[in-house]
Amino acid sequence: MSELPKRVYIVEEGAREGFQSEPADIPTSEKIRLIEALAETGVPEIDCASFVNPKVVPQMADVAQIAEGIRKREGVTYGCMWLNAKGFLQAVDSGLSLPALTSGSASDTFLARNNNSTPEKQIEGQRKLRALYTEHGLGSGPVYLFTAFGCNYEGDIPVAKAMQRAEDLVGVCEEAGTPPSCIYLCDTIGAADPMQVRALVEAVRTRWPDYPVALHLHDTRGLGIANAMAGLELGVSRFDASVGGLGGCPFAGNRSAAGNIATEELALLCERLGIETGIDIPALLDVAQMAEEIVNHKLPGKLFRAGMFARN
Amino acid sequence: MSELPKRVYIVEEGAREGFQSEPADIPTSEKIRLIEALAETGVPEIDCASFVNPKVVPQMADVAQIAEGIRKREGVTYGCMWLNAKGFLQAVDSGLSLPALTSGSASDTFLARNNNSTPEKQIEGQRKLRALYTEHGLGSGPVYLFTAFGCNYEGDIPVAKAMQRAEDLVGVCEEAGTPPSCIYLCDTIGAADPMQVRALVEAVRTRWPDYPVALHLHDTRGLGIANAMAGLELGVSRFDASVGGLGGCPFAGNRSAAGNIATEELALLCERLGIETGIDIPALLDVAQMAEEIVNHKLPGKLFRAGMFARN
Repeated sequence: MSELPKRVYIVEEGAREGFQSEPADIPTSEKIRLIEALAETGVPEIDCASFVNPKVVPQMADVAQIAEGIRKREGVTYGCMWLNAKGFLQAVDSGLSLPALTSGSASDTFLARNNNSTPEKQIEGQRKLRALYTEHGLGSGPVYLFTAFGCNYEGDIPVAKAMQRAEDLVGVCEEAGTPPSCIYLCDTIGAADPMQVRALVEAVRTRWPDYPVALHLHDTRGLGIANAMAGLELGVSRFDASVGGLGGCPFAGNRSAAGNIATEELALLCERLGIETGIDIPALLDVAQMAEEIVNHKLPGKLFRAGMFARN
Repeated sequence: MSELPKRVYIVEEGAREGFQSEPADIPTSEKIRLIEALAETGVPEIDCASFVNPKVVPQMADVAQIAEGIRKREGVTYGCMWLNAKGFLQAVDSGLSLPALTSGSASDTFLARNNNSTPEKQIEGQRKLRALYTEHGLGSGPVYLFTAFGCNYEGDIPVAKAMQRAEDLVGVCEEAGTPPSCIYLCDTIGAADPMQVRALVEAVRTRWPDYPVALHLHDTRGLGIANAMAGLELGVSRFDASVGGLGGCPFAGNRSAAGNIATEELALLCERLGIETGIDIPALLDVAQMAEEIVNHKLPGKLFRAGMFARN
């Protein structure tokens, strides 16, 4: 019944997606301090910042300084994110690792309301970006399918609909001769339940058996770790998560909504299932505590508050 | 692969186990207000209070006033808890519903440290209590196996060990001619993972196919809802939970540890899986908000903070 992976690769999102949900007054030095502390815990990849319009996302106005300021640890990937060509070109100059991102929304309403775009324009934009990546010598990269399970406008997204949008995004990569390195199913607003996760992961695996499935899960409604478990049992071996559950969900229509699943809780679940992550959980609990001090409000993570137990 | 139940019975623990972890200054009227609001949400059973020594648990000093003050709603069970004969006799006079509780710890160290007892003394005490129940005309009741999966002294509890203690407790009930109405496996300190839940639920079901298994789960380490999912998929149809995740875990060695799994998140998971609970989730989210106002600090529940989404 279970196809648990032997090893799971966790991408730490706290410094990027997490801080993006916080007020813009966190000092650059504190952001760097968190990234450097995370790198000491065995997390293999840290998403450090977004190259986005600082007028829209003032939290990321210091992204170049962050990129420049990090003392990098060997063996750790320091990634970043962007939404368009301008952002990508800034990222190129940053010295951060460049994943060749191809992304799009499964929900057309979400795309229209949040990006003032259409499925056709979305794909056209991604095609141009993909060409730019190739110009810059980037090969395959991940596909991110946002709102893959549901959105706050359309509710549940049917599997067939999500697959249609995934097909478009995978097509962009394949046409360019750079097939996806993995396909991320993103529960952007925390709408998924374990059955939906199973259904969509299985559909993607059946359609593209050669492209690994990854999960980007939010815990907006408290089902995040059950959704992660559903993914693990289907062999999903790449997840995004954020230390302490840092972050929120600007799309949940509520500033106090919970963020990504907590990295240390996902790592604990993996450890309990005999799956390697390379993460030193007690060290990560200390970093979650640090993250809470930096943002100066209670983070949703539970494990770092309770601590580990004897012999566990 | 899945044996999801058609209907799940949720016992609301917020007023009892939840308030027990809070300072003793919550007014009786507020406790009653919460219980009465919970009763309007479709929750079938509410654990209202513990008849325990008020010197040890000052939060429960007003238990008789609570029991007396509740305006009861037809169709709702208003239960209570006790640990010994003295507590039971007080409960008898309270007008609350009396489950014939037979309980004990799977961890001997936990039993020694927290109750200054031994497995032998534990069973002897339960045998006397059971005789007292019969004297008072009570038939079958639930067995509660505390620390069934792990404890902060012994770490993981092996299935064989938990089964041995369960055997003792079930024996007390069977000898008295009152077989258990169900067997609660309690993750008292939130030590369990989904694989442990599966292993122990299956062991209990195999040994006693006629006694339903129930789960009392804590979310101390963030794995609670994944553990609930594991139970649901094995057909477990009775759970304890607390509104908003109210409560803590005095045994986690940390006053800020999270409490029971949140009732509204368990109800949402059930709803998403097509399982009936009878609970009006939006109404329960309002009560979780009320609970947070009453205790005047942030509760761990996530769903009540985010709210429901469109068409979900």
